[in-house]
Amino acid sequence: MANRPHLDSLNLAPGKKARLYRLLYETGPANGTLMILPIDQGLEHGPRDFFDAPESQDPHFQFRIAVEGRFSAIACQIGLAEKYYPAYAGKIPLILKLNGKTEIPSDEAPLSPQIASVEDAVRLGADAVGYTLYVGSSRQDEDFQQFRRIREEADRYGMPVVVWSYPRGAAIEAKGGKDTIYAVDYAARVAQELGADVIKLNVPKVDPEKLKMAPKAYQRDWTPEEALKQVIQSAGNSLVIFAGGERGAGASALEKAEACMKAGATGLIFGRNVWQRPFSEAMELSRSIHEMLERYA
Amino acid sequence: MANRPHLDSLNLAPGKKARLYRLLYETGPANGTLMILPIDQGLEHGPRDFFDAPESQDPHFQFRIAVEGRFSAIACQIGLAEKYYPAYAGKIPLILKLNGKTEIPSDEAPLSPQIASVEDAVRLGADAVGYTLYVGSSRQDEDFQQFRRIREEADRYGMPVVVWSYPRGAAIEAKGGKDTIYAVDYAARVAQELGADVIKLNVPKVDPEKLKMAPKAYQRDWTPEEALKQVIQSAGNSLVIFAGGERGAGASALEKAEACMKAGATGLIFGRNVWQRPFSEAMELSRSIHEMLERYA
Amino acid sequence: MANRPHLDSLNLAPGKKARLYRLLYETGPANGTLMILPIDQGLEHGPRDFFDAPESQDPHFQFRIAVEGRFSAIACQIGLAEKYYPAYAGKIPLILKLNGKTEIPSDEAPLSPQIASVEDAVRLGADAVGYTLYVGSSRQDEDFQQFRRIREEADRYGMPVVVWSYPRGAAIEAKGGKDTIYAVDYAARVAQELGADVIKLNVPKVDPEKLKMAPKAYQRDWTPEEALKQVIQSAGNSLVIFAGGERGAGASALEKAEACMKAGATGLIFGRNVWQRPFSEAMELSRSIHEMLERYA
Amino acid sequence: MANRPHLDSLNLAPGKKARLYRLLYETGPANGTLMILPIDQGLEHGPRDFFDAPESQDPHFQFRIAVEGRFSAIACQIGLAEKYYPAYAGKIPLILKLNGKTEIPSDEAPLSPQIASVEDAVRLGADAVGYTLYVGSSRQDEDFQQFRRIREEADRYGMPVVVWSYPRGAAIEAKGGKDTIYAVDYAARVAQELGADVIKLNVPKVDPEKLKMAPKAYQRDWTPEEALKQVIQSAGNSLVIFAGGERGAGASALEKAEACMKAGATGLIFGRNVWQRPFSEAMELSRSIHEMLERYA
Amino acid sequence: MANRPHLDSLNLAPGKKARLYRLLYETGPANGTLMILPIDQGLEHGPRDFFDAPESQDPHFQFRIAVEGRFSAIACQIGLAEKYYPAYAGKIPLILKLNGKTEIPSDEAPLSPQIASVEDAVRLGADAVGYTLYVGSSRQDEDFQQFRRIREEADRYGMPVVVWSYPRGAAIEAKGGKDTIYAVDYAARVAQELGADVIKLNVPKVDPEKLKMAPKAYQRDWTPEEALKQVIQSAGNSLVIFAGGERGAGASALEKAEACMKAGATGLIFGRNVWQRPFSEAMELSRSIHEMLERYA
Repeated sequence: MANRPHLDSLNLAPGKKARLYRLLYETGPANGTLMILPIDQGLEHGPRDFFDAPESQDPHFQFRIAVEGRFSAIACQIGLAEKYYPAYAGKIPLILKLNGKTEIPSDEAPLSPQIASVEDAVRLGADAVGYTLYVGSSRQDEDFQQFRRIREEADRYGMPVVVWSYPRGAAIEAKGGKDTIYAVDYAARVAQELGADVIKLNVPKVDPEKLKMAPKAYQRDWTPEEALKQVIQSAGNSLVIFAGGERGAGASALEKAEACMKAGATGLIFGRNVWQRPFSEAMELSRSIHEMLERYA
Repeated sequence: MANRPHLDSLNLAPGKKARLYRLLYETGPANGTLMILPIDQGLEHGPRDFFDAPESQDPHFQFRIAVEGRFSAIACQIGLAEKYYPAYAGKIPLILKLNGKTEIPSDEAPLSPQIASVEDAVRLGADAVGYTLYVGSSRQDEDFQQFRRIREEADRYGMPVVVWSYPRGAAIEAKGGKDTIYAVDYAARVAQELGADVIKLNVPKVDPEKLKMAPKAYQRDWTPEEALKQVIQSAGNSLVIFAGGERGAGASALEKAEACMKAGATGLIFGRNVWQRPFSEAMELSRSIHEMLERYA
Repeated sequence: MANRPHLDSLNLAPGKKARLYRLLYETGPANGTLMILPIDQGLEHGPRDFFDAPESQDPHFQFRIAVEGRFSAIACQIGLAEKYYPAYAGKIPLILKLNGKTEIPSDEAPLSPQIASVEDAVRLGADAVGYTLYVGSSRQDEDFQQFRRIREEADRYGMPVVVWSYPRGAAIEAKGGKDTIYAVDYAARVAQELGADVIKLNVPKVDPEKLKMAPKAYQRDWTPEEALKQVIQSAGNSLVIFAGGERGAGASALEKAEACMKAGATGLIFGRNVWQRPFSEAMELSRSIHEMLERYA
Repeated sequence: MANRPHLDSLNLAPGKKARLYRLLYETGPANGTLMILPIDQGLEHGPRDFFDAPESQDPHFQFRIAVEGRFSAIACQIGLAEKYYPAYAGKIPLILKLNGKTEIPSDEAPLSPQIASVEDAVRLGADAVGYTLYVGSSRQDEDFQQFRRIREEADRYGMPVVVWSYPRGAAIEAKGGKDTIYAVDYAARVAQELGADVIKLNVPKVDPEKLKMAPKAYQRDWTPEEALKQVIQSAGNSLVIFAGGERGAGASALEKAEACMKAGATGLIFGRNVWQRPFSEAMELSRSIHEMLERYA
Repeated sequence: MANRPHLDSLNLAPGKKARLYRLLYETGPANGTLMILPIDQGLEHGPRDFFDAPESQDPHFQFRIAVEGRFSAIACQIGLAEKYYPAYAGKIPLILKLNGKTEIPSDEAPLSPQIASVEDAVRLGADAVGYTLYVGSSRQDEDFQQFRRIREEADRYGMPVVVWSYPRGAAIEAKGGKDTIYAVDYAARVAQELGADVIKLNVPKVDPEKLKMAPKAYQRDWTPEEALKQVIQSAGNSLVIFAGGERGAGASALEKAEACMKAGATGLIFGRNVWQRPFSEAMELSRSIHEMLERYA
């Protein structure tokens, strides 16, 4: 079983350390792992994500799951943070996402524009901010510059930065797409180089056909375990969390999640897979995640 | 009959609450509903909108209708606010629109540029600011960033933000156009996610042919009532107001408006349908709206 | 004879009122009308405009005409204002133009960049600032945002804003060109909506062929008088001044100018038609304009 | 012999006047004329300009020529100003160029980006700043806005602004190119309109074939003298200096330079023609220029 | 053997001099030469650069090499500087790179966006900042403006600026590519003109076929020695360091490096060639570099 970086070894400034300590040791599993519930899909995909689970249209649903399912934090955009979080403040830490976009226009050269600031996060009592970086987009120059201003503001306020590091855009497609070990691996390193404290990655998919389009150095057989370890390695001293993905069978999702933890991940981010279920099922899945994470203290 | 969010449940900062309270309980119907008169068409469409009702060319006409028709507020751009509103200040609240554009150049990738600031609104004694968001435009990154700066300034001053949330642009056209339930629904959620306090929507049109171009999740039969409820639901803890549209038969417009209120809307925004009539007719229609809204306290 | 707005009815802030009062009642005709001499053609068209009247190459020529011809103000760019105006300060009010461009590159998507600030105008003792707005240009978003910053600065300093409101660009050409009643009318309204205190318009040309390309609402017969009244009406509570155009027969220019005044204009802006003549002829024409304007107190 | 503007007639602010006085009356010919040595070709053309005169690769060479050849000032970019000027400070005034570019990418739509600030110039004890304006470029809007910020900063610090006013770009080519009397004449006026204190022009070339592509007003026979007088006239109350061009025969360069002075120029800017020679030859040419300029006090 | 500029002759401000003194005389060879270890390839090339030397994936590896191999400084991006440098602070000076990009999108018009600031460098105790300039890119205007802001901030804080000056982009390709003596020579001069204190260059490659595409002045036979001297000459009063390139045979790399020193370089930057080896081999190579540099005090 791989080691994950310990908070004490990350050389974090006191504000960042105090806030991450809260997420890692005072809420959720509280054993140094993370279990985060994101509710940003309404902006990224539109309300269609809520259609199979009608309760989920009301953001209170996700906030209740986060509190009663004992998550480490809930991650959402400024609108929900201002209108819903006040009722739950103190009961569940907040990760304020600072940028976002709709899926409507073309994704050839994506850029996720800033829609809130670190100062908003401080004002709302958030314990971290989130940023979506589109690694490989031809607009990386704007993305990096935008991220820099946020990273600097976060350094000033001692606010941890969680980077959703996503390979995207035409050049990524030409090199095998967003799910190859090459793409995810590069995304992990870029987030580390730019100053992420926590990096959210998608689990790389092992698809030999697509991998052929990637650079030569990646041309070998990868087991899923090796792939996971590689991308976690590339994140270095940044904590890695993996997505639970769309709603699937609970058991297989848990297996996949456990593989991530085994490979050295610090935690999990379970969104649709949790809240696209009825409340009681969501609680059940949350409990299972808790049980599993207890084994990775 | 659907519930609409109550001001007390919105977790608003005191400045926003005090100002929205004025609009909801001290002017217009004063029963928690909104009845807003917009006069921004001179910029958006040009003077042609005034041609069938010559009196309407003089902005005093709309200001008089707003005052004598006992509207909750009048919404206009900075030019009219500075040159006409002084004579009516105190008699009718002002919603200062902060961006706008002409219809002359192509609407393929629309962006409505900022032409006034929240500080202008504070200086003029406005009770809210208005912002037009073009959801789905390929320039959404500029739009969201522009909105962010305004939203932050509004948070600083406790100024409510009304978002005219309009699906627009080539990608929206390719997915069925600006009037599908898909497009309006996404627009409602985006405005909520970005931090709108009040969202102005157009009534979705149920057109099966166009809906076929929208994402699969929307592929079902929608009654007009279901469509209205859906988009209001997607606005969450933001108040929703619907447009009365162009001048049509008074009765049918009222029926349509009442359907909105029944579905859970907080209010209505009646522009051309009111002021493209002679003054006495406009007063008559205003009275009818009042009577109807009284039933939705 | 149409009414023009009176200074007292414009709800202007004290600084704007004091400065416009000077232009309207203390210099030039001093009877509430305006008679302005612009010398911005050196930038907009280049020196070629001076070739038929060699004296006009020296900016002192225009400054002398403005002073001795008893104009209400001279309008020029920062370069002439800094290098020539000092010798005439006190003798003739200054309208400092804040943006401008050459005619050399394509005019498909025009934008007139800012080259001076309201603060420059304050420092130089100007009584107003000028801004050229290209209504209908596909770069209207940049134009409106640039204008906003200037308008806000002008509000802060109590500085009147004169907008040269010009329909321009490919979309305007496609709808009949810059001289149709449609184009000029829309331009007038846009300037009003954005916060102009004074609007400079070109006299609309009645050309049925071109008008056919404009929106339906404009498809009717317009007399020149109706067209003038319409565009003045669309300027609302902003004062309207019309251009005297290029040098033509003095008499016909005066007739055209008087038609503008009859229709409700507040004043005239005579540039090339005045200074493309020898000094004595220019004085003569100035006197004729004075005589005419005396009839429109 | 034409008159050139006298410093006292330029209405300059005290800081600008004091600094220009130094350049005009305390260094170089010190008789009201200017003799400037530019060393900005390393950036604009690359090191190739130094290849025929190997000593010229070392910037000390040009600084020594400027000092020992008794020039009025040396003009260079920030890098040389910071690394070489300290050794010569006090012995030769500095004109700090504030923008520049390489010749490597296409010149279709040129823009010379800012690489230093007026504040840098103040800090380094410079007596003027230099700015290259590409008149006619389709990026004139960015150029003018960039120049405005510099001009305003220069006004704040009382720092004279020397504009290298160059017609450039595709539209200029389509109208006969950068050397026609039309192009240079327009460039002179633009620099004046934007607020230049000193304007550097290239000597217009009289080429009837190219002139045919220029606007009609310029379609006449021009003697070289007339052309020079015309462009100086168009610079108005801004002082004009002309380039000595590439290294040619000393005598013909002096003749050409003297023609400029006769036509009313205030001075000369001799770069490659001076420093592409061995030191002793450069001194000789400098002396000849001095002798000639003495005749134009 | 060529001379290299001495720190005392560079006219540096005290802060820059104190910090460069540390790099030149207190760490590394400490004899006035530089020996720098860069670890920025994870961002520029992605993790693939680490694949042949698995230990190198962990940034501690490079930091240890820098410390134990007695380098003058380590150069890295903000992410590694914040997460790894604290453990080594005091033991090895830091050069904080301020911009960077991935290699994923097209390199036709490259621009390396800013991802950290001089203030970050000050906060972290760095002794210099690094900037990658893409000389010849069609986006040179953005690059120069971005560099200017950084250079000004560095001047304010007395922070030395190391410019990685790389010829790049379509126009460079059209003129023979990034490795010709023409391209490297121009890059050296540009960095000097813009204000670099230290310039990192790649060793020019002598390839007659490619050189044919360069400007005429470069059309001659160049020995490798002449080429090196030329580009060092073009860097003037800026110190030059050369790259050791990818991992090759140790001996040939040392020969190449010594040729640079002989030609007048101030130092070397050895990255992959050092850390793509096992630790003991890396130490051995470091010692060899030290020995060689001792001969160039």
